[in-house]
Amino acid sequence: MRRPVLFLISAPSGGGKTTVCNALLAANSGLSRVITCTTRPPRPGEVNGVDYHFYSPEEFDRRVVAGEFLEQASVYERRYGTRKASVLDLFREGKDVLLNIDVQGAASVRGVAAREAELAAALVTVFLTPPTRAELEQRLRGRGSDSNEVIARRMTEAQVEVARWREFDYLVVSGTPAQDAARMQAILDAERIRSVRSDLEWKES
Amino acid sequence: MRRPVLFLISAPSGGGKTTVCNALLAANSGLSRVITCTTRPPRPGEVNGVDYHFYSPEEFDRRVVAGEFLEQASVYERRYGTRKASVLDLFREGKDVLLNIDVQGAASVRGVAAREAELAAALVTVFLTPPTRAELEQRLRGRGSDSNEVIARRMTEAQVEVARWREFDYLVVSGTPAQDAARMQAILDAERIRSVRSDLEWKES
Repeated sequence: MRRPVLFLISAPSGGGKTTVCNALLAANSGLSRVITCTTRPPRPGEVNGVDYHFYSPEEFDRRVVAGEFLEQASVYERRYGTRKASVLDLFREGKDVLLNIDVQGAASVRGVAAREAELAAALVTVFLTPPTRAELEQRLRGRGSDSNEVIARRMTEAQVEVARWREFDYLVVSGTPAQDAARMQAILDAERIRSVRSDLEWKES
Repeated sequence: MRRPVLFLISAPSGGGKTTVCNALLAANSGLSRVITCTTRPPRPGEVNGVDYHFYSPEEFDRRVVAGEFLEQASVYERRYGTRKASVLDLFREGKDVLLNIDVQGAASVRGVAAREAELAAALVTVFLTPPTRAELEQRLRGRGSDSNEVIARRMTEAQVEVARWREFDYLVVSGTPAQDAARMQAILDAERIRSVRSDLEWKES
């Protein structure tokens, strides 16, 4: 039985991360998204344990203190995080796991994995970036959803994030969505057949 | 400018190595075969420096002593080898290099690369094997070119070689030629965009 891949993809906001992650999930039945934990209340129709694990701030804190999280962060006073157990449970089901996460979260995952052999053996990290600053700015403006002020802040954040590309195993300089998906697929396909993840019993038949 | 890949493929005799190497070379203009050195005399039509580097046994020995070879071996009293300079020259031309080599040769390349940073950074090793002993035997018999005795010897050699699959970065358990080529291509595509081989200068345009 093959050992699993924890496929972590980071990109600056507007870098095309969501598109490529959805393409990967659609193309790989053996790849699963992990369910995020959050302290924000469920929206209508959201189901606990399916869309998110919904925790009270107190429960979230308790789990942070217990060391349950691979990474966690606050966004506008709401907390979000990924539990180690969510990843390991998917491994037990024979799944590879996709993590779509920012650069700081990636650093946290790397730090936790450094202390846990199973996660360290599984972790593969990819940084996805547009080829130029101008290209990212154009994409952010093209979305039409952000004010000039928000775009300026995102561009400053992106500069800081992109400067950390060397922390990742792979660098994908984005082209078309199809090219990005093909490159991610090549990385996943290759990592799945690394010797360290393989098993071979060369029998008679 | 991206750093090069030295793509080393090993397989037991009859394992489908030549087919997959030819497919890779046909599909990747940036990938070059390295010219082998030999002490056997040129056959009609063979050109020195194109088909092989043809050396006298004395010159071959001199170059071995001078530490010029990545690997070298004797086959039926003829000597064959791959010079480091042949690989590095192709790197200078911006090429990735394909080495089709046996398990012992691969171990030699690894040993030399361990002492030379440029080769160590470039080296990617893949072991290609049929899924079972029976499958390899069937392939050897299917070629129709070997006696029972030769096939028995190749099967014994194969058993020893396959036992060393963990020495390689990747394990490709062969399927159809097209599947083998696709897996090799994924490995090559992924390794080409490893961060350690990449460069990113995130400029205005």
